[in-house]
Amino acid sequence: MHAGAEVKRAPGIDLSHHLSDLSKARQTSPLKGLQKYLGHPNLINLAGGLPHPDYFPYSRVSADALVPSSFATSRESSLSWLWNLFSGDKSTSLTVPRYPAKDGDINLAQALQYGLARGMPQIQDFIRRFTAEVYQPAYDNWATLINSGNTDGWCRAALTLCNPGEGIFAAEWTYPSAKATVIPLGVRMVPLPMDIQGIRSDKFREILATWDDKSRNMSRPHVLYTIPIGQNPTGGTMSAPRKQEIYNICVEFDIIIVEDDPYYFLQHGQYLPKASRGKSKEIQNDKWYSTLEPSYLAFDVQGRVIRLDSFSKVIAPGCRLGWFTCNPLFAERLERQGETSLQAPCGFSQALVTSLLLNWKDEGYTRWLRGLQAQYISRRDFFVDCLLDTFHFTPVTVADEKSLWDGGVIYQAFREKSGNRSPVLSFVPPTSGMFVWLKVHFETHPLYEFHGQEALETKLWLKLAESGVLFGPGVMFSASEPEDTTAINDGHMRVSFSNEEFDKMKTAVEIFKSTLDHFYDEKR
Amino acid sequence: MHAGAEVKRAPGIDLSHHLSDLSKARQTSPLKGLQKYLGHPNLINLAGGLPHPDYFPYSRVSADALVPSSFATSRESSLSWLWNLFSGDKSTSLTVPRYPAKDGDINLAQALQYGLARGMPQIQDFIRRFTAEVYQPAYDNWATLINSGNTDGWCRAALTLCNPGEGIFAAEWTYPSAKATVIPLGVRMVPLPMDIQGIRSDKFREILATWDDKSRNMSRPHVLYTIPIGQNPTGGTMSAPRKQEIYNICVEFDIIIVEDDPYYFLQHGQYLPKASRGKSKEIQNDKWYSTLEPSYLAFDVQGRVIRLDSFSKVIAPGCRLGWFTCNPLFAERLERQGETSLQAPCGFSQALVTSLLLNWKDEGYTRWLRGLQAQYISRRDFFVDCLLDTFHFTPVTVADEKSLWDGGVIYQAFREKSGNRSPVLSFVPPTSGMFVWLKVHFETHPLYEFHGQEALETKLWLKLAESGVLFGPGVMFSASEPEDTTAINDGHMRVSFSNEEFDKMKTAVEIFKSTLDHFYDEKR
Repeated sequence: MHAGAEVKRAPGIDLSHHLSDLSKARQTSPLKGLQKYLGHPNLINLAGGLPHPDYFPYSRVSADALVPSSFATSRESSLSWLWNLFSGDKSTSLTVPRYPAKDGDINLAQALQYGLARGMPQIQDFIRRFTAEVYQPAYDNWATLINSGNTDGWCRAALTLCNPGEGIFAAEWTYPSAKATVIPLGVRMVPLPMDIQGIRSDKFREILATWDDKSRNMSRPHVLYTIPIGQNPTGGTMSAPRKQEIYNICVEFDIIIVEDDPYYFLQHGQYLPKASRGKSKEIQNDKWYSTLEPSYLAFDVQGRVIRLDSFSKVIAPGCRLGWFTCNPLFAERLERQGETSLQAPCGFSQALVTSLLLNWKDEGYTRWLRGLQAQYISRRDFFVDCLLDTFHFTPVTVADEKSLWDGGVIYQAFREKSGNRSPVLSFVPPTSGMFVWLKVHFETHPLYEFHGQEALETKLWLKLAESGVLFGPGVMFSASEPEDTTAINDGHMRVSFSNEEFDKMKTAVEIFKSTLDHFYDEKR
Repeated sequence: MHAGAEVKRAPGIDLSHHLSDLSKARQTSPLKGLQKYLGHPNLINLAGGLPHPDYFPYSRVSADALVPSSFATSRESSLSWLWNLFSGDKSTSLTVPRYPAKDGDINLAQALQYGLARGMPQIQDFIRRFTAEVYQPAYDNWATLINSGNTDGWCRAALTLCNPGEGIFAAEWTYPSAKATVIPLGVRMVPLPMDIQGIRSDKFREILATWDDKSRNMSRPHVLYTIPIGQNPTGGTMSAPRKQEIYNICVEFDIIIVEDDPYYFLQHGQYLPKASRGKSKEIQNDKWYSTLEPSYLAFDVQGRVIRLDSFSKVIAPGCRLGWFTCNPLFAERLERQGETSLQAPCGFSQALVTSLLLNWKDEGYTRWLRGLQAQYISRRDFFVDCLLDTFHFTPVTVADEKSLWDGGVIYQAFREKSGNRSPVLSFVPPTSGMFVWLKVHFETHPLYEFHGQEALETKLWLKLAESGVLFGPGVMFSASEPEDTTAINDGHMRVSFSNEEFDKMKTAVEIFKSTLDHFYDEKR
């Protein structure tokens, strides 16, 4: 992390009118209110229902963990086989005893006991320091608060901000679980047109400025849900200027931004075909964060961003740990909600993740993130290479404001049949995250008029599944209501390059090619 | 656990009309829906956003754990110093590797990955088996579902059953966080009169039969929240006959019972004064469960009980693990809710708790629970002994249907002043759980007419806190609305004997005695 000069910033503004009725009605969990008396060293506390820590059956929890430099950075990765050979000791040991040897030591008596919804002090400190140094929020009194990952974070943010009957703005293609969370709350998503970077600021502004409650059948939403880095499903990356534009619009129209950013450190940069891929120049560890696109927090002079950070993609999903960064009022309400749902995140996880971060130190965690970034770049490159090797793509520049890929260069595969040349498949290589968003041109399928787009998409997906390959069905990622006939209705598949072995990814692309060929040969 | 003969039971009845609007509107988390295709062994899965398990920094997690016989059982506890000396090896080792050595082994690649909301198969199996053998639900198609502890469990149950504006029946003294969870949902608690066993069936029936929507300003509640064992705060234990009565009433009036039962295994039996305490007779491990009061599940022929079990009091609160037992329809809705809030419980916790249970085996876990039961009996006995040694109590039999202690023997301490003898403090020794519920007779305080009960309670609580002792303020545990002037208004303190060292508990009782003496000496 870079130290950075101390910058004097103003506090955020009052945004309390954004709280939902439910959030306003939430009280402090009554027994937790006692905890302000707990500071006295000789206090005899018979108030809480805490088991004695001698009754915890775990006397010690330990872990063997990788060292921060376990994976080569992207700058080193062309020599990664050498790296793997000579990078030395690959393991470090973590131990959490039942009782601390000295004050401040992580211990099970604390971690496995009832705790505050805000988590153990050691992980609070790390989160606060990391956020300050890496994201540099643009106002003074921002707060951080631990949660159980971004699904929990989004669920709590939505409940804190939205009343039933309200809407939430979201990219027209978005994370399905984010939608599934809000639907039963009686909250609808209002899709926003996208381009290569994600949400279009021009269209967003237009929708806001011309919003008509009556024809829309709801009041103008006051919340924007966005995944600006590694956009799920498109793999897009939103640049700083676009973020600044959208932030300004949100100030003008008084919108709260929920920045769901689990893929932040998986920024790949532009895809370069194999032939033109060179060795990047060396970069110092403490300069690395400044090579990444900034968070919305960097523009947030008013405190209208709720940022969701997660350890799921950079440590492990099973940790179920993440955190909010937001204004102190929202943080307090979100904490109250945590007290009566989860209480605190799991103690094993807090203890083992904090031990790891303290063992690695800030410098080490940065190095770990760089190694992970490089792994995902290799995976992105490999998967896109497979696509290019298997299909015959033509790069096409797109300048069409109705296209998801406006402003980008797409790779497009055509099909020649009876002298006609029609597009079958196209995509833009992702620049961050875990996914390639493939567009299948169902409108050129011989049975398109007969079946329609949606039935064809399902059919292709099932054919692929039967051939042993599972892709994410595109229709799942639509932010639109199923009954909205004006919604974009392109056929897509989301393909993840994050998890499978390389040879299997290659096989999957080959199976996809032959399945697609057969699929387009279909006759009525 | 006892094997028990296979009993043929009928399925539960249709109770779908109890689902809340929110619960009915909840969809399957879209991406999780794909998981039905995941069975095929050679499937290449590029659908999910899963990191590769090689990127998890933990290569192995291990723990030193106590053995099941670490604490003497209540039958052995009179010889517990001998037990501690000779009970042999006190430690066992648990290891969770990154990858399984053989199928079914608990491993980090699975535990730390995204998982199903229903948890790892190994812990699902344990929970199911344990529930069948220990609680013996009285219908055929009951289901179990893991959750993140009873706070999560209750929050999900309330959201699954209640619409805003509805009420929930609860004991007049109840767990404050249970109330704090439902208040912001626009759901009120409707207090039910109690006696020594907990909720009175006669009064419950009367309230239901004479319910008037208009004067009550709400429709008749269809949910009962209850803590039948180790009632929080009173420490009462509900017998089987009372449970059967209440269950029958719930059938008659179509009420769903949420049985919040974290203290189930901490059943103490009646308190016996030191002099009359003898050695209990030996009991076999597999006969132990039948010495405990049964769960509501044992009477649940229709599937109208949602039972909440927790590992918090018997393993450790920081595990954040518990489970539902209920009918399959409710279980499915509760699972859907989990998918969009917590996803799955923490993987470290699932792995370490499951490893422990498999290491101990069923027999060992039973033995562990018996040891814990004995520890809490010793603590209860010690704390009540302290009270009896410090105050001068007179046992008084109560037969007053307005008394919380109707049907019991209370210990009552009096104060002599100017020839008058008036009660100051009274209590009934708890028969399960972690708490003593002390009644302070504020109505006999010299300044009662001047200050009133509530101000005096606060004053005493603060005096105690300033003297270094923290009790739970009684007013917190009232299920009534603060504005309800008809509500019971007795002064209480909840005192926990579960956590502090024995000498500190003794000191606390002495400080309480002198604080109370000074408090009653106060003059206007």
